[in-house]
Amino acid sequence: MIATSRPQAFEPDLTLSPTPQTVWFVFQGPRLLVREDGTLPQGEVPWALEDVTPLGRQEDVPFFTAGLSGDAPEGWAALPVRACFGRLPDDRMGLAGYAAQVLDFIRTHRYCGRCASALTDAAHERSRRCPNCGLAVYPRVAPVAMVLIHRGQGAATELLLARSPHFPPGMYSAIAGFVEPSETLETAARREVLEEVGVQVGELRYAFSQPWPFPHSLMLGFDAEYVSGAITPQAGEIEDARWFPVTALPTLPAPVSIARALIDRAVQAALPL
Amino acid sequence: MIATSRPQAFEPDLTLSPTPQTVWFVFQGPRLLVREDGTLPQGEVPWALEDVTPLGRQEDVPFFTAGLSGDAPEGWAALPVRACFGRLPDDRMGLAGYAAQVLDFIRTHRYCGRCASALTDAAHERSRRCPNCGLAVYPRVAPVAMVLIHRGQGAATELLLARSPHFPPGMYSAIAGFVEPSETLETAARREVLEEVGVQVGELRYAFSQPWPFPHSLMLGFDAEYVSGAITPQAGEIEDARWFPVTALPTLPAPVSIARALIDRAVQAALPL
Repeated sequence: MIATSRPQAFEPDLTLSPTPQTVWFVFQGPRLLVREDGTLPQGEVPWALEDVTPLGRQEDVPFFTAGLSGDAPEGWAALPVRACFGRLPDDRMGLAGYAAQVLDFIRTHRYCGRCASALTDAAHERSRRCPNCGLAVYPRVAPVAMVLIHRGQGAATELLLARSPHFPPGMYSAIAGFVEPSETLETAARREVLEEVGVQVGELRYAFSQPWPFPHSLMLGFDAEYVSGAITPQAGEIEDARWFPVTALPTLPAPVSIARALIDRAVQAALPL
Repeated sequence: MIATSRPQAFEPDLTLSPTPQTVWFVFQGPRLLVREDGTLPQGEVPWALEDVTPLGRQEDVPFFTAGLSGDAPEGWAALPVRACFGRLPDDRMGLAGYAAQVLDFIRTHRYCGRCASALTDAAHERSRRCPNCGLAVYPRVAPVAMVLIHRGQGAATELLLARSPHFPPGMYSAIAGFVEPSETLETAARREVLEEVGVQVGELRYAFSQPWPFPHSLMLGFDAEYVSGAITPQAGEIEDARWFPVTALPTLPAPVSIARALIDRAVQAALPL
C-alpha cells in the first residue's frame, strides 16, 4: 500500500529553493505531467509555471510542485494521478499524491472563506492565513470509515461486497463513507453499513489505514462479522450488494487500495495455503 | 465519552422549519448562550439572529443553530462550549459540539476559496457550492493520532505523559498530533511520538476514537509499548515529558477526554481491583 503514502524518508521542507536536482510534480489542472517511461521533470523547467511550491526532500533530492500555464509540452503526457500507479515508481507515486494535495490546497485556498481577502502563506508550517480577519486554514485530511463484513468460517466464508454506480463494470468493494462531525469513527462505520446495505454488524476490529489522495481521504479499515438484517442497497448510492464466497469473488478494486488489502487478508485467513 | 458525540438517536435534517418545540444552540462569536441551570433557548427566540440553520431532530425535538447579533440578553451566559461540560446534560452537550462545528463551517465558508464568489447551500447535504467555479466544500473533520506509551508490567507500569505550555498548571497527557496529507494514521502516530518526546515505540494497538469539537478533530487513540530512546521534549511544543508510575500520576485531562479514557484503562489493567 506504500504507493499512496509519502515515503518514510521524505521530509517536508517549506524553505527549499529549486536546484538542478529538483524533481517537479507539474499539474495541468488536476493532471500530472509525466513522460511515457515514467520520468518526471527534473532541474530547470522551461515552461511557464504558477503556484510554484516546495514540498520537501528525500535523501538529497528536493521536490517541488507547480501548476502549468498552457498546454502540455511535446513529449509529455498529462495524466490523472490515479492513472500513474504502475507508471511511476512507488515512492514517486506516493509523493505525486502528496503533491496533488498540496497544490489543490493552494488552488482552493486563495481567498478567505470568512471575508474573501487574499490569503498568504504562513512561514513556519503548511497553512495559509488571512491578513484581514486572521483565519488560518490547513490542508484537509478527510477520515473515511471502511468496513469489510464477513459471514461464516474457513472455506465457507462469505464477504458482503457492494458496488457504486461509479465503479468500473463488475467491480465490487467493501462499504465506506466519510466520518461526519461529532461522530466517533465506529459510529460512522456502523451508520455507513446500515445506510448502504441495511445490515447490523458485531464488534468492529480496526485493521489498518491508508491515505487516499483522491482528493484527500484517510481510509480507516475495519473487519466486522455480520449479525442480522437482509441486504438492502441504498437507492442512488449502491447499485448492487451481495454475499460473495471467498472462493468466487467478483472483480475487486486495484491491489493498491485498502479495500483490496482487507479482502486479500480475509481470503488468506479463510483459505490458508 | 458520550458528551463529545452527537447522540445515536439524533438524525441530521436540513429541511426543518423552526417550531415552538425547537431547541436552539445560539452562539455569540464562539460562545454558547445557556442559562445558569443548563437550559437552552426553546421555541420562539426574541433575539436578532444570523446564519439560522437547521441541525436535525432527536425523537420529536427539532434542533437549530444560529449566531447572535449583539450582546447576550439578560439572564443568559455566553460560555465557551468546553465550559459547558457538566452544565449541559450529556446529549445536549454532544449536540452543542455538533452545532458549534456546523455554525463554524458556515461562518468560515461564506466565500469560495478558489474564486472569492459568495457560496450557497447545497440542497441535499451539508455542503456549500460556488455558483461561479463549482467548488464544493464540506464541514471539516481533522483526524488526530493519539498515543499512550507504556513501560513495564502490572503495578510497576509507567506511562509516558507530556505537557504542552498551553495546559493548565501540573496537567500531563498522552502524545497527540494531526495526521498530515499522505500519511497513514500509524505513520502520523510514530512521527508525533518521535517529534514530541524522541522515543521509539513498538506495535500500535488501536483502542477507540472520539470526536473533539474544538474546533473539529477526530481523536484516534492507540496504546504502544516503549522500545528505545531517551525522552527529549520538543522545543516550543512540549514543556515537560516524563515517566509516571501508575501509582503516582499527575493531574490528568478531564474524564470526558479520550486521553483520560486511555490512561484510566491502562491504570485499571495495571492495578486490577
